[in-house]
Amino acid sequence: MPKSVYLAGPEVFLANAREVLDAKIALTREAGLIPVSPGDLEFPHTDTKWELGLAISAIDEKLMHSADAIIANLTPFRGIAADTGTCFELGFMCAQGKPAFAYTNVRHDHGERTKAYYAGQWSVDATGRSRGPDGLMIEDMGFVDNLMLHGGVLNPGGVVVVGDAPKGAELTDLTAFKAVLKIAAERLLG
Amino acid sequence: MPKSVYLAGPEVFLANAREVLDAKIALTREAGLIPVSPGDLEFPHTDTKWELGLAISAIDEKLMHSADAIIANLTPFRGIAADTGTCFELGFMCAQGKPAFAYTNVRHDHGERTKAYYAGQWSVDATGRSRGPDGLMIEDMGFVDNLMLHGGVLNPGGVVVVGDAPKGAELTDLTAFKAVLKIAAERLLG
Repeated sequence: MPKSVYLAGPEVFLANAREVLDAKIALTREAGLIPVSPGDLEFPHTDTKWELGLAISAIDEKLMHSADAIIANLTPFRGIAADTGTCFELGFMCAQGKPAFAYTNVRHDHGERTKAYYAGQWSVDATGRSRGPDGLMIEDMGFVDNLMLHGGVLNPGGVVVVGDAPKGAELTDLTAFKAVLKIAAERLLG
Repeated sequence: MPKSVYLAGPEVFLANAREVLDAKIALTREAGLIPVSPGDLEFPHTDTKWELGLAISAIDEKLMHSADAIIANLTPFRGIAADTGTCFELGFMCAQGKPAFAYTNVRHDHGERTKAYYAGQWSVDATGRSRGPDGLMIEDMGFVDNLMLHGGVLNPGGVVVVGDAPKGAELTDLTAFKAVLKIAAERLLG
């Protein structure tokens, strides 16, 4: 039985989105899996950007319902955390009990990135929690992002691959994607 | 039949998390709904932060599976976008077809915030898409965050309330929460 994988990630925002998405699609096919990619279906004509956005959301949800599994790119996007659309999609698939895999192209974990966001100005409170100077708790558990994402993948038996892409290639490098794709294919087809 | 609502948001990170969570819990009860809040269950003892994180993830997923609906706080958190854990949770509930409601305490929409992130240095490409100086596309569709979040709430008939909290109270103000809670109660109990 062929298995399909929804390819979630911020690549859709890239200037060369089509090129990078096509590369991920081709690699997924080579791995023996059916790629399901956010750009797969034609978007309808709409009068406003608002309507277009709602239509894209509906299409992507339909694609996710059709897919057997997900590989989510949790590389930080415009800040210290993963793309929020990708996070929504990962939760969407985890809720259905579908096998979930994730990767990031940035070596520094969520806690390290948050501490860097505070320029190192953090401290440990009386209960042992790390906090920024604004009092906000810092999750420094070693996860690639918020614990719901990393836990959502790991708890049911999924895998998170941590890459270390060259500076400037964080959103385009496919090394970590290839690594997690290999694992996903073994699990889904084995 | 009583209806329960999962209260997703970055309040768990606040220095006064318990106080703000308790206020949301009390308001939800007053509205006639059963609050389901991330801090509801005792966390197990674990030897490492890593294991604790995985345990919290499992507990929160269990709470979400038990809840009838979600109200997600999409106020920007440590940057220009919503808390990634909250985004995961919103997707988790939307995938189950459960009624979803959301709010933000920041008036500026996702496109406006992203353009501010680029300090106004953005332009429109030949296809009509707005892009930052790094080439990344800017979603300026009027949504409060990535289209998957806003669309995930609106498409099945949910509501997104946009608040305008005083500066410094973006993560604690409950005005928008009260407004969306009122709508959610009418919908869920009506």
